[in-house]
Amino acid sequence: MTEEQFIESLTTGWKTKNAQLVGVGDDCAVVRASGSGFGSALLLKADAVVEGVHFLRTADPMLIGRKALARAVSDVAAMGGVPRYALVTLGLPSGFQPVRIQKIYKGITALAKEWKIELLGGETTRTRDLVLSISLVGECSGYDPVLRSTAKEGDEIWVSGFLGNTQTVKHFTFEPRVREGKWLAEKKIASSMMDLSDGLGLDLPRLARASGLSFELALDQIPCAKGATLKQAFREGEDYELLWTVSPEKKEWRKKFPFATKIQKIGVMKKRSFKIAESVKELLHGYDHLQKR
Amino acid sequence: MTEEQFIESLTTGWKTKNAQLVGVGDDCAVVRASGSGFGSALLLKADAVVEGVHFLRTADPMLIGRKALARAVSDVAAMGGVPRYALVTLGLPSGFQPVRIQKIYKGITALAKEWKIELLGGETTRTRDLVLSISLVGECSGYDPVLRSTAKEGDEIWVSGFLGNTQTVKHFTFEPRVREGKWLAEKKIASSMMDLSDGLGLDLPRLARASGLSFELALDQIPCAKGATLKQAFREGEDYELLWTVSPEKKEWRKKFPFATKIQKIGVMKKRSFKIAESVKELLHGYDHLQKR
Repeated sequence: MTEEQFIESLTTGWKTKNAQLVGVGDDCAVVRASGSGFGSALLLKADAVVEGVHFLRTADPMLIGRKALARAVSDVAAMGGVPRYALVTLGLPSGFQPVRIQKIYKGITALAKEWKIELLGGETTRTRDLVLSISLVGECSGYDPVLRSTAKEGDEIWVSGFLGNTQTVKHFTFEPRVREGKWLAEKKIASSMMDLSDGLGLDLPRLARASGLSFELALDQIPCAKGATLKQAFREGEDYELLWTVSPEKKEWRKKFPFATKIQKIGVMKKRSFKIAESVKELLHGYDHLQKR
Repeated sequence: MTEEQFIESLTTGWKTKNAQLVGVGDDCAVVRASGSGFGSALLLKADAVVEGVHFLRTADPMLIGRKALARAVSDVAAMGGVPRYALVTLGLPSGFQPVRIQKIYKGITALAKEWKIELLGGETTRTRDLVLSISLVGECSGYDPVLRSTAKEGDEIWVSGFLGNTQTVKHFTFEPRVREGKWLAEKKIASSMMDLSDGLGLDLPRLARASGLSFELALDQIPCAKGATLKQAFREGEDYELLWTVSPEKKEWRKKFPFATKIQKIGVMKKRSFKIAESVKELLHGYDHLQKR
């Protein structure tokens, strides 16, 4: 059993039997309301960043705070949701620098303001390493969230932005694709969607597995970031771009896409039995999500 | 500036202007729905336990998992809510023992089952110390949550259970007062409420401060647990009992209280200018919540 399989095994008893809910295995959990109080679906996301794992002690504290919240926002965006409310749990090592912690909170507060997220509190506890744990509630108001398990054979595979070369700056400064994700969900364009946090090479196989399918990629169509090799575009992780599928019957949507964000068709979803080309297989596997910076 | 004041200062910019919301400073954040989809109010709580701070490495792993979730459930109960959905973020040190982690998750799962909480997933990350961070969503369906800031002068002060002697077993095995809290909220008995996590000596002053009041206590009425001194009953913390206030005009409620749980009147809320007796003052101050086990 690999470590990832072990982690997955911990929550296997958690499969919800409630058809109104989406539990383990997607970008967010989904709680559907029968009435209209919160629209049709609430998205719940919990995510933590840890010093020495997700950021270095020397990193700009404003960017550390920004990243902590932005990662969770990206997961809400990945289902087409709009982020609404957040709680912050701070794990504080002894001997912390007050000014640094204040700047981290400024980074959180600034991003929350940008996306009109209400920061509703949180808790503080002692830890050995600085930990920022975010609980985020998002909403799909009047439309359904897009899952990663609903791609269909023959659907086109699309990505936003450019992939790779994330580790110097972009893993801190990425813009969560909230508007793009909402548009793709609300207009019912995307048949499945997720965000790329562990790299296309790990995340696309996850989407395919969740949908019970395989895939074919056009490697010359992968939008590599400046300075990134194809391998880095697949494996580096922390792109926080959207990955989604679209039925080939939807034809006009590309022209109507109202954002300047680059989007690119990179392949097609195939039957589960479809054999992935060796040249693609080599590029798969992101890093283990426990090793992630 | 004390450490607690510093922590409070981090979130001072987070005062919500939305009257539909309750943010920083209560047991949970409250999000009110205008419609009926989720009843009238959702309660949001994030809470973390850390090895070496909230439990020792040698503790029974089932009880560690139980405690992680039960603490958050107690905060939902403290507003009269019913716990509904939870996410678990696991911070995993390298070289962890798989069987121990599985038992921790069994402890979480067992308590969730007991309270009919849907476990909807979570994230895993690397940490140096084992961290369990819980995001819990609760609900007050058709009635208002009870805040800690709404006690009135002259209200009686009540507590559930027995206080103190928590550190050997009770900090692991306490029963969150969900039924009692819901009854006190739904029947509109409690004018204010919170749970005792840091000890009566720290938490009652918090409730009084939030309500802009002072208080008078009958020290001979404090329900000390077997083996606990009065000082321990005030200062030990981790009782996870309810503390609430009731208008003296509500007379019949005590007879109608439908639970076997001991409840006890311990004092009266007074004007802010009321001078607390020296004998009581000595017993105040819990430990700093950053030092909490």
